[in-house]
Amino acid sequence: MNRRKFIKTTAVLGSASLLKPSFAFSGSSSKLKIGVIGTGLRGQWMINLFLNRPDVEISAICDIDDKMIEMTKEIFRRKGLPIPKIYNRDENDYLNLLSNEDLDGVNIATPWRWHHPMAISAMKNNVHVGVEVPAALSVSECWDLVDTSEKTGKLCMIMENVCYRRDIMAILNMVRLGMFGEIIHCQGGYQHDLRHVKFNDGSQPYGGGVEFGEKGFSEARWRTHHSVDKNADLYPTHGLGPVSPMLDINRGNRMLHVTSTASQARGLNKYIVEKGGSDHPNAQVNFKLGDVVTSVIKCANGQTIVLSHDTNSPRPYSLNFRVQGTQGIWMKDNKSIYIEGLSPQNHRWESENKYLNEYDHPLWKRFSTSKDDLSQAGHGGMDFFIARAFIESIKGAKKPVIDVYDAVSMSVIVPLSESSIKSGSRPIKIPDFTRGKWKKNKPIFGLDDNY
Amino acid sequence: MNRRKFIKTTAVLGSASLLKPSFAFSGSSSKLKIGVIGTGLRGQWMINLFLNRPDVEISAICDIDDKMIEMTKEIFRRKGLPIPKIYNRDENDYLNLLSNEDLDGVNIATPWRWHHPMAISAMKNNVHVGVEVPAALSVSECWDLVDTSEKTGKLCMIMENVCYRRDIMAILNMVRLGMFGEIIHCQGGYQHDLRHVKFNDGSQPYGGGVEFGEKGFSEARWRTHHSVDKNADLYPTHGLGPVSPMLDINRGNRMLHVTSTASQARGLNKYIVEKGGSDHPNAQVNFKLGDVVTSVIKCANGQTIVLSHDTNSPRPYSLNFRVQGTQGIWMKDNKSIYIEGLSPQNHRWESENKYLNEYDHPLWKRFSTSKDDLSQAGHGGMDFFIARAFIESIKGAKKPVIDVYDAVSMSVIVPLSESSIKSGSRPIKIPDFTRGKWKKNKPIFGLDDNY
Repeated sequence: MNRRKFIKTTAVLGSASLLKPSFAFSGSSSKLKIGVIGTGLRGQWMINLFLNRPDVEISAICDIDDKMIEMTKEIFRRKGLPIPKIYNRDENDYLNLLSNEDLDGVNIATPWRWHHPMAISAMKNNVHVGVEVPAALSVSECWDLVDTSEKTGKLCMIMENVCYRRDIMAILNMVRLGMFGEIIHCQGGYQHDLRHVKFNDGSQPYGGGVEFGEKGFSEARWRTHHSVDKNADLYPTHGLGPVSPMLDINRGNRMLHVTSTASQARGLNKYIVEKGGSDHPNAQVNFKLGDVVTSVIKCANGQTIVLSHDTNSPRPYSLNFRVQGTQGIWMKDNKSIYIEGLSPQNHRWESENKYLNEYDHPLWKRFSTSKDDLSQAGHGGMDFFIARAFIESIKGAKKPVIDVYDAVSMSVIVPLSESSIKSGSRPIKIPDFTRGKWKKNKPIFGLDDNY
Repeated sequence: MNRRKFIKTTAVLGSASLLKPSFAFSGSSSKLKIGVIGTGLRGQWMINLFLNRPDVEISAICDIDDKMIEMTKEIFRRKGLPIPKIYNRDENDYLNLLSNEDLDGVNIATPWRWHHPMAISAMKNNVHVGVEVPAALSVSECWDLVDTSEKTGKLCMIMENVCYRRDIMAILNMVRLGMFGEIIHCQGGYQHDLRHVKFNDGSQPYGGGVEFGEKGFSEARWRTHHSVDKNADLYPTHGLGPVSPMLDINRGNRMLHVTSTASQARGLNKYIVEKGGSDHPNAQVNFKLGDVVTSVIKCANGQTIVLSHDTNSPRPYSLNFRVQGTQGIWMKDNKSIYIEGLSPQNHRWESENKYLNEYDHPLWKRFSTSKDDLSQAGHGGMDFFIARAFIESIKGAKKPVIDVYDAVSMSVIVPLSESSIKSGSRPIKIPDFTRGKWKKNKPIFGLDDNY
């Protein structure tokens, strides 16, 4: 067994594998070999970040879109690096990448429906997985990820970058310090006008036309179909992921049930008609996705979580964060905090700034003063941390901080919200993917400045 | 039939009574005779407002609390008015007030559980009703109010003052002008730290102790019991009332079902223990009311409404308003508006101020320049308008703008949210109290500067 294979077999899933990781990967002599499946704009961006690291080598990439492959090769050329092995024969060529290459890990940044089969294949090929959000689209796919990760001992991490947003981590810090008291209610969501993402002119990624599917480019090629086919919270993880550690989800707490309610669907058709005319063929498309989808989750320890999904309407961006406890409340939409006994005026908001600075998370403190330029690291720095977390998890210094249980508990809201909406907002039970281990699992995300 | 009796019989409920109102009440020679049942702090305040009007005489009052009666008499003395007839023998003495006095209308400002029986008795005694929120506490009470109002032809108006809040009416104005496009989603709620209202020292109305019930004063005497007995949205009307006209509820639209989910109950016990010590007898009380209750309503025309009830925790006051359409969005918590095509920067909030000024409602324009001092009229002026609407409705110049269907559709969320929470957040059907008339009813609230 060579060194890489030993790492691949023993590291990461301490609780699932028989052997405990017994060393920290030094990373100096041999780099981790990482593959990237899906080299669209997101995949390219992650490649950029991985290549910034001295301990990572991107040895293989996979995509069926020639334009995206060309753009990706250009990244390597610009950095003076050799072009990695390319898998682009057909949409199943990722299977060859996974079986032929001796990879430590693979980053999956493909259209959503490929996340599950690719993650499963990777783990079965003894490759650790970092999969973009959402990790899976059905309950059975979620269970499959859990079972496969447990059986193979491979990491199945969800690349939920917002968990690492600076304000989120400061608030998590404050939650852990008890400053909000006992947490009673959280809110999150994905309120992002995606109309120019869902439609474009077929050559630029954002806007310029009302095409999607075959005639669209980038996300419009595939993402928009989900708005046609499905009435659900299509994108719950950016809201749910960040509040999960604050609520100790899967680690002392779990989500019991969810109800979802969708508004009428108007925005996408309106956009097509206004930009492309009522004669445009897409003006006849019937979009199932309600413009605003509200989901309410109940937790075993009593807390409620409200998630908002709102991507078809003109609105300023907001992830709708609110964290409320028996002692205080943070509300992102007005950038404010109120803490009883600390805030100078009773019942008056304070700017969040003072608190976000004072309780800046150790991880951010550590890296914002290093040579790593976080402002260039994507989405305000949080992509730097999620890429780093994936690599550090593979290196196995300690248990991964975002694991397969997080991946599926965040993602399962997609199919469950769909079921709830279909049945007139009935509460849908949320499976306990930890099979009872949530009762004894300890919090693990963001405990220190490690990862 | 004398003039008053004629008004009482024919005015107001045009659709329910056989005779249509055929004249506007001139109000110069004979004043409307109004009774007030419940002369607590709210009742006293409304008496103040009614007495400001030249067309109203408060001829009888009723309460069983001697202290409150004394405070009320003082209002009349200060104004140099004769003390009205007092009914204070026992808690059923209101029946004598209603049968003995020849009243045009009665304002009911008693503890919630009395709202329904008092309103029913008033209507059966041929007296128009203005009842404080909520109008009823059960589904059958709601139906009873509807049936009785229809049968007697008497007004059963809910005194939902927030419908008249200046920003709300400006936004309603903008909604009617189509500036938000087709409305898809609204939010509202009652997020108000009531701990100092629910508990006091038995002599002052707000705070100073942790007593309630027999040992409490003012609202703490009765309101707090609802937090002991009931897990529900106890106070939905301040959030739901204002958005109802924006959604044409009962007038072209109706609410179909509601799901409610409650967080754990912590805040009230924490407050008692912290202020009164863990040895205080009230520290043993088991409060059923979850600290945050979230309800989601689905409308016949597709829209969703999110209501938040949050009264047990330290937090700044907010009624959680948000109004969103296919063209733009208003969010009160950051005092902002965004309208596509109007807002100068794409996806950027603007201050709401410009819009609230420009689209100030005609009713506010009319009265904010009159001699009526709205700033002294309670809750930023909105109490002036709700008192005025009640009186104008009785005078019967035209149909009442807030009627019994509004009263019950706003109030029924109390029992329905309780049912939903009890059943694990199941969707509960919302009765069509209009019995199909919502399909043809036309919008009526706030159409002009009349009332």
